[in-house]
Amino acid sequence: MTPFTRQRVRSVAALGEPRLLAAIRRWLGNTSPASPFGIGDDCAVIPPTKNHQLVTTDPVLYGRHFDATVPARAVGAKVLKRNLSDIAAMGGRPVAAVVSLALGADTAAAWLRKFYLGLAACARRHGVKIVGGDVTQAPAGFFGAFLTLHGESTGRRVVTRGGARPGDHLYVTGTLGGSRLGHHFQFIPRLAEGRWLASRPEIRAMMDVSDGLAKDLGALTPPGLAPALCAGAVPVSATARRCAARSGKPPLHHALGDGEDYELLLVVARRADREKFARDWRRRFPRLRLTHLGHFVRRDQLPADALRLADHHGFEHLR
Amino acid sequence: MTPFTRQRVRSVAALGEPRLLAAIRRWLGNTSPASPFGIGDDCAVIPPTKNHQLVTTDPVLYGRHFDATVPARAVGAKVLKRNLSDIAAMGGRPVAAVVSLALGADTAAAWLRKFYLGLAACARRHGVKIVGGDVTQAPAGFFGAFLTLHGESTGRRVVTRGGARPGDHLYVTGTLGGSRLGHHFQFIPRLAEGRWLASRPEIRAMMDVSDGLAKDLGALTPPGLAPALCAGAVPVSATARRCAARSGKPPLHHALGDGEDYELLLVVARRADREKFARDWRRRFPRLRLTHLGHFVRRDQLPADALRLADHHGFEHLR
Repeated sequence: MTPFTRQRVRSVAALGEPRLLAAIRRWLGNTSPASPFGIGDDCAVIPPTKNHQLVTTDPVLYGRHFDATVPARAVGAKVLKRNLSDIAAMGGRPVAAVVSLALGADTAAAWLRKFYLGLAACARRHGVKIVGGDVTQAPAGFFGAFLTLHGESTGRRVVTRGGARPGDHLYVTGTLGGSRLGHHFQFIPRLAEGRWLASRPEIRAMMDVSDGLAKDLGALTPPGLAPALCAGAVPVSATARRCAARSGKPPLHHALGDGEDYELLLVVARRADREKFARDWRRRFPRLRLTHLGHFVRRDQLPADALRLADHHGFEHLR
Repeated sequence: MTPFTRQRVRSVAALGEPRLLAAIRRWLGNTSPASPFGIGDDCAVIPPTKNHQLVTTDPVLYGRHFDATVPARAVGAKVLKRNLSDIAAMGGRPVAAVVSLALGADTAAAWLRKFYLGLAACARRHGVKIVGGDVTQAPAGFFGAFLTLHGESTGRRVVTRGGARPGDHLYVTGTLGGSRLGHHFQFIPRLAEGRWLASRPEIRAMMDVSDGLAKDLGALTPPGLAPALCAGAVPVSATARRCAARSGKPPLHHALGDGEDYELLLVVARRADREKFARDWRRRFPRLRLTHLGHFVRRDQLPADALRLADHHGFEHLR
């Protein structure tokens, strides 16, 4: 089902702005607190904390991030989950979100209701409040939801992408690839995992895998270094294998290039007790795989048999 | 000039994503700090403060908020100024913004450069850092910039829209109406004024006038009360008079209904020393008019000669 309707009576235009805004607050239910903490004043007010504030923004657009095959609830959940994954990658805790909608006057009120119910259910699950937003009319047939998520650090530190040194080890949670077969609407943001990892002194750097490992790894790799990965180590997902059966490409290609995995990629200090780290992980997260992918070397010391990431393009926008 | 080009070589698509993101950081210059405070990590990190955090979000869309007659720099400044006005209305100080762009692959790189130069100049003027964002491809001919602005309270309190009581007085800064003749790109967000007003104990409530006084006043009016305004008191702008000369409608109609004034509307406590308040205002802001519009009464005590706001519709979205 597309977000749109040809019957004006079923569209958001028929509802009109005041009734639409009231409906949005109703759909959001208890995830929409009273102003000034929530919707209804010039700004939303978030109480002060002693922690660092984290801010991230990612949208979903019809025709780009979802199509008519995706249920509206899954779209609403996804726009929040994309951003939750970014908070997870810094080891943070999500707090509050604002949502700016740009939509055609032909957007169906029933579709939008399910979008907000999906968003609210996901917000409730993760303790996020929807504290503000905006609704603006766009050309017919356009639907975009632009969410900005605020979180805070959970411990003394925020884990950034910087900091890998020669000899440091690379790990990834879960399995990779095949997101186009639906996983990218079903994924679970790794919030508990990110928080736990941020509390571990052996973690030097972290990020989430959103554009595919082959592309994203560049952001964790300091100048002068290169990741020495073993192709056999990459945790290829079952759906990546199914994609490979259809595409005729090797499963590894899907695992490295598909994107939208939303797993965590982490750098563990060279001198860390990796056995203890792996043991502690298994005790805390017995059901989620953690895989050692390889380690960082100086660029001129890359082994000849290291995985050539450049052969596996990640997702590139604006192509 | 529209944001778009028919020559692919001049478009953002020809630039490609990595070069476009590098260009955006170059255009933003010193308003784009190094990560993790700025662009380049999973989230932007804002240092902790003891004050309340303020969050607001407003977009600009081509065809809705601007057209081909508006210079790109003015569009870039406006998306920030709309949000600055919301921070001003709470008496806050702006800190950091994230910008999510949705644009057609046919967007001209030269237009986008000027958009970002305008945004950066405005950010510099107001001490705002651009700390994050996202660029997503939209259908050809679409351009939308979705900005979320973070600020903080400057004193012990945040001035909300709630709190007016019977007998309290209504004031407005500046003059109203005629924004369609260009003012809505040239306005100056009332940040210094908002901060000063938030520090004054006689201010009970405040908001900015964005959809027109006739519509916005409802948000300041508690249930059971009504604003008793005198038509002659409304500060009609010179451009509202020029609009009236063209439209054939009374100038007051433009002053109350045009919207996009971005002036501050404030509620002053009934028992306040209003002469001292006006004197202190003139000393602090000698060049900006502050006008007494009237006062709040119980709904059943509205004088027969009070201005009938319902006759002057403010701007309504999704019509």
